[in-house]
Amino acid sequence: MESWVDGQPADVLSLKDRGLAYGDGLFETIAVRNGEPVLSDRHLQRLGLGCQRLAFKVDLAALAAELRAYAQGLGDGVLKLIVTRGDSLRGYGADPSAVPRRILLGSPPASYPVAHAEQGVRLFPCVTRLSEQPLLAGLKHLNRLEQVLARAEWSDAEHAEGLMLDTSGRVIEGVFSNLFLVRDGVLITADLSRCGVAGVMRAELLYQAESQGIATHVTDIRLEQLHQADEVFVCNSVYGVWPVRACGSARWSAGPLTRKLQTLARTLLDV
Amino acid sequence: MESWVDGQPADVLSLKDRGLAYGDGLFETIAVRNGEPVLSDRHLQRLGLGCQRLAFKVDLAALAAELRAYAQGLGDGVLKLIVTRGDSLRGYGADPSAVPRRILLGSPPASYPVAHAEQGVRLFPCVTRLSEQPLLAGLKHLNRLEQVLARAEWSDAEHAEGLMLDTSGRVIEGVFSNLFLVRDGVLITADLSRCGVAGVMRAELLYQAESQGIATHVTDIRLEQLHQADEVFVCNSVYGVWPVRACGSARWSAGPLTRKLQTLARTLLDV
Repeated sequence: MESWVDGQPADVLSLKDRGLAYGDGLFETIAVRNGEPVLSDRHLQRLGLGCQRLAFKVDLAALAAELRAYAQGLGDGVLKLIVTRGDSLRGYGADPSAVPRRILLGSPPASYPVAHAEQGVRLFPCVTRLSEQPLLAGLKHLNRLEQVLARAEWSDAEHAEGLMLDTSGRVIEGVFSNLFLVRDGVLITADLSRCGVAGVMRAELLYQAESQGIATHVTDIRLEQLHQADEVFVCNSVYGVWPVRACGSARWSAGPLTRKLQTLARTLLDV
Repeated sequence: MESWVDGQPADVLSLKDRGLAYGDGLFETIAVRNGEPVLSDRHLQRLGLGCQRLAFKVDLAALAAELRAYAQGLGDGVLKLIVTRGDSLRGYGADPSAVPRRILLGSPPASYPVAHAEQGVRLFPCVTRLSEQPLLAGLKHLNRLEQVLARAEWSDAEHAEGLMLDTSGRVIEGVFSNLFLVRDGVLITADLSRCGVAGVMRAELLYQAESQGIATHVTDIRLEQLHQADEVFVCNSVYGVWPVRACGSARWSAGPLTRKLQTLARTLLDV
């Protein structure tokens, strides 16, 4: 489907856009099923938080309507929404009157090997670490060179995802996923107040688990704790849940809580 | 002057460009005098290092020729060169066959108040800290949200620049400048192996000082050391050297070494 810029069909962008100049923007990658953006409230909520933290004045209600209109045209696929601060003056200082720019890009449904979801995936232990920046932590902003470097560390089909630690050695997330572990029936995921992207599927799974009486714990995770986990899985809002069966020399089996949350994600994503 | 994309006049960019998607690119801001890019060897050297670290295959000789051609058309002004990894597939993984994209943007000469260079400037003590990422440190890449946040901390004309520390509290640089201090005749600037942009003017001043027998020291700098300095100045490749006269409650006078290096930068920049 053709892309939109500020609500109009377009496939190019002004060279003055601050998204290009400084990565001064945010994005959301949203699954679309039967013309409906999946988990759109959560996506818009995170985007809204990002706009607040970066001081973008965006009409979220109008954006939600635009998103729905685009998704309807897309039918089934993946929608990428980018919001930038708009055009730049020279230098880092923003023009206070600059109007944020909205970009919508549609693509066909993601196609991953069925084995990723069934047998689970192997994670590549990335050498690239996530730097700690509390002011940007949790946001899905456009400064993603760390993910680019991490993703370039492997090219074999053996590894479906990579494991990223922060510069202090804490276990944080995948390159394009959040990570969960299960230990003694408790669902555990990393505290993302220093770095990492607070994923929409992560938020939904935490919410659903709590609603079902499953104990959850958002905390700092040591590599040792990951190795001792009963179950490990990764998730995002496009593919849902993949059990993790290996990372380096560590091995895990897909357990009951992973399968339960995977089923839940499948229902949401209709895959 | 009109901008160029891949050597052709253009003012727009593909929405698929990874510079927009992930800040997956590098830039240089180059003063142009009488049709000549100033310190172009140093700019191209830093860009080359960035291309190596990010694994961009760029023909630097061809780029140098393109830069000279564009500068000739610009005459006097400021040239911004952006190199991105080119268009993206979906996701962080790069297409190994992707061709890096070259963007050249020209603007009129920068106009700063004469007082900045003569009486010196006041630095705003920024709360935004620089995160530590050795893999990207020193590069002028397109992930610049920390600078955007820092520059948004002040809007008064009292402050011409901001002072940035890293997350461990070391003194690193300005928002768009490098910082030097002088203590007992030694020229000192921050070690940029964890964060910061290794500026072209910084490199040139270090080289010139060493050539003239002035002792230089690239090291970690504590805030206390900054406060006790005999002279403090900031520099970049567009404005040259500005003495720093104040930051918060600290005060300094423009000393002889600052003035000597300022004269040198003026000669280079012909301002």
